Amino acid sequence: MDWTIQLLINLMLSFCGFIATIRAVPKMGHLFIKANLCGIDMSKKESKKIPEAMGIVCGCIYLIVVFIFIPVPFGTYIVFNQEGFPHEKFVELLAALLSICCMLLLGFADDVLELKWRHKLLLPTVASLPLLMVYFVTYNGTTIIVPKPLRFLVGYSLNLGPLYYVYMGMLAVFCTNAINILAGVNGLEVGQSVVIAASLLAHNVAELGGPLRDTHLFSLYLLLPFIGVSLALLYHNWYPSAAFVGDTYCYFAGMTFAVIGILGHFSKTMLLFFLPQIANFVYSVPQLFHFVPCPRHRLPRYDRKTDRLHMSTSTFRMSSLRWPGRLALRLGHAVGVVHLTESGGMTTCNNLTIINLLLKLAGPLHERRVTQALLAIQVMCSCLAFVIRYPLASLFYDV
Amino acid sequence: MDWTIQLLINLMLSFCGFIATIRAVPKMGHLFIKANLCGIDMSKKESKKIPEAMGIVCGCIYLIVVFIFIPVPFGTYIVFNQEGFPHEKFVELLAALLSICCMLLLGFADDVLELKWRHKLLLPTVASLPLLMVYFVTYNGTTIIVPKPLRFLVGYSLNLGPLYYVYMGMLAVFCTNAINILAGVNGLEVGQSVVIAASLLAHNVAELGGPLRDTHLFSLYLLLPFIGVSLALLYHNWYPSAAFVGDTYCYFAGMTFAVIGILGHFSKTMLLFFLPQIANFVYSVPQLFHFVPCPRHRLPRYDRKTDRLHMSTSTFRMSSLRWPGRLALRLGHAVGVVHLTESGGMTTCNNLTIINLLLKLAGPLHERRVTQALLAIQVMCSCLAFVIRYPLASLFYDV
Repeated sequence: MDWTIQLLINLMLSFCGFIATIRAVPKMGHLFIKANLCGIDMSKKESKKIPEAMGIVCGCIYLIVVFIFIPVPFGTYIVFNQEGFPHEKFVELLAALLSICCMLLLGFADDVLELKWRHKLLLPTVASLPLLMVYFVTYNGTTIIVPKPLRFLVGYSLNLGPLYYVYMGMLAVFCTNAINILAGVNGLEVGQSVVIAASLLAHNVAELGGPLRDTHLFSLYLLLPFIGVSLALLYHNWYPSAAFVGDTYCYFAGMTFAVIGILGHFSKTMLLFFLPQIANFVYSVPQLFHFVPCPRHRLPRYDRKTDRLHMSTSTFRMSSLRWPGRLALRLGHAVGVVHLTESGGMTTCNNLTIINLLLKLAGPLHERRVTQALLAIQVMCSCLAFVIRYPLASLFYDV
Repeated sequence: MDWTIQLLINLMLSFCGFIATIRAVPKMGHLFIKANLCGIDMSKKESKKIPEAMGIVCGCIYLIVVFIFIPVPFGTYIVFNQEGFPHEKFVELLAALLSICCMLLLGFADDVLELKWRHKLLLPTVASLPLLMVYFVTYNGTTIIVPKPLRFLVGYSLNLGPLYYVYMGMLAVFCTNAINILAGVNGLEVGQSVVIAASLLAHNVAELGGPLRDTHLFSLYLLLPFIGVSLALLYHNWYPSAAFVGDTYCYFAGMTFAVIGILGHFSKTMLLFFLPQIANFVYSVPQLFHFVPCPRHRLPRYDRKTDRLHMSTSTFRMSSLRWPGRLALRLGHAVGVVHLTESGGMTTCNNLTIINLLLKLAGPLHERRVTQALLAIQVMCSCLAFVIRYPLASLFYDV
């Protein structure tokens, strides 16, 4: 079967996934509330129970869509008795689905059981196991091309061996958690995932004419249904949210990206689309590693009177911090990215997320504007990523 | 690598799974209770909250064990650069894991969200999708050998075509629900699964010397870890239960059996090990299809004074039933398997499960005795199944 027809079928199925998700989410809401899987939106005037962890609905529909699609690219070999069945691609698809399904299961278990912080690192590692095992059994390519400026040191290519598996495992941990920690305002988790997915889509489509068409086609088969179900979820999650997506969705989205990056062999390009997430992670490091006190929630503070979000802050005694914390805060304050005030021996500092940074720089904003601004930044970073990936890459690699 | 070494490694990993499960279940219990995933044991003197849906712990550990095992039978081809990588077996293993992982996810979602009765039929169908799709893409064998007595009608073999896929889908629905409806006394769900798994184990081992060794080896690779984690769960689920297993476990176990039966091409033999479940299903039909009123729970009734279980009953007006219900009850009463009493125009009948049937025939029993008796029946039925499968099979098939 021609690949354009396959793509068209995938597109149609993705649209069905969109419709199914947009209808299922409001219908299932009451079941989640009954199961006490719900939360109160802290940034709204009225406090109403909003169903939580709805990412499970969108994830399950995603899996069903991809399951139904399986026979399209592969079944023709059976039906028409063709030679040359692409075993490796088939195995990769199954491994990808297995990792995504596992992550969905663990993410939902996390939402229900409220697992500990250390599990957030353990779960994606477990879920990426099938992918790594299959990578080992089928491909086992652990050699990377060294960027030009470093070649005088280590040569043209470098076999990372087991380190490459550590890198892939960490990629899964990073992708899942990076989306999870850039969260807290309506529509942001799904919105950023949709922008990243759209960027990957553009990258895949740009490469369809190149020599690696099959790889990018494969990535599209996983990506289009993801965009379909995510857009539907975004519709319900957009301000004012009628559904919260939970860790389930963040893990599901992160693992889908990790899987696509690893099996598509463009994990570095993919990381370029994570620039805001990387910035958020780096900015968060002093709090994540507890050099600076980290409250349970770092959401912006809601002002009921103006209906706007203000940056949230933590207050502590500066002298109680260890030196890396003090250094980071002073340095951040000096370059203008950390809000620091002292009074009566106590120090107040904004919570270190780029959401609070935006509110520090732009002043109090309406919640919808916060999401819009952050998504606009995400889009601009994707544009920057394309500049780095295409014109600038020749500085580092032979194109 | 020699297959005996592979089997030995699988056995060791299964033992690790056993240890991990036996330690994790009590440790995780409080998380389940906090998440309100718990129930009160109705058949105990004191009413204490018991964590529910603990099958998820045992299912996740099962998946991890099998993931870690993947490189053992397949990785040697990569490591030693051997020819003849068994692509089909590898794909089958991944499809099996995908279906099991999906069923675990849906089972847990069912436990948390308390989905409706019709979902109990839908979920296993969805979870068996990847398996059916992969079966279609790789094997697509839909021809069955006709039993001798029927050959004069349809010939030696029969190509069932799409009907074969319906059969496989229904097998998954049957296996998952058959275990789920023979439940309600401590240790029974896991106990029956362990007996069925042990029977399959015996069948596989008996066939290891035969021409289909690879198929039965493959089945063992999935079966041994299942027995490992199930025995550990049984330890905690045995009378008096410290953990309930939930629909999660029943679905997980049922899907594991369905997958093993389908990919091992011995689904008919497997169904022989489900004799008590089939009997329970047939016996339950009048209530399941609502020809006879069916209460939400059909558990035996607990007598606090004697600490024994009595059969539970439903009371209704016989004239309100449609004729199939009336016929089934009268017939069952005539052959002595249905308890029927009438007084003041109202009819009282025992709830139609073989647990209640046992209590009708044997009189009130202690809960531990009920489980022991039912498991003894399960073992005897497995022995009968072996007689049917081996000496008697020659009446129906050329051996």
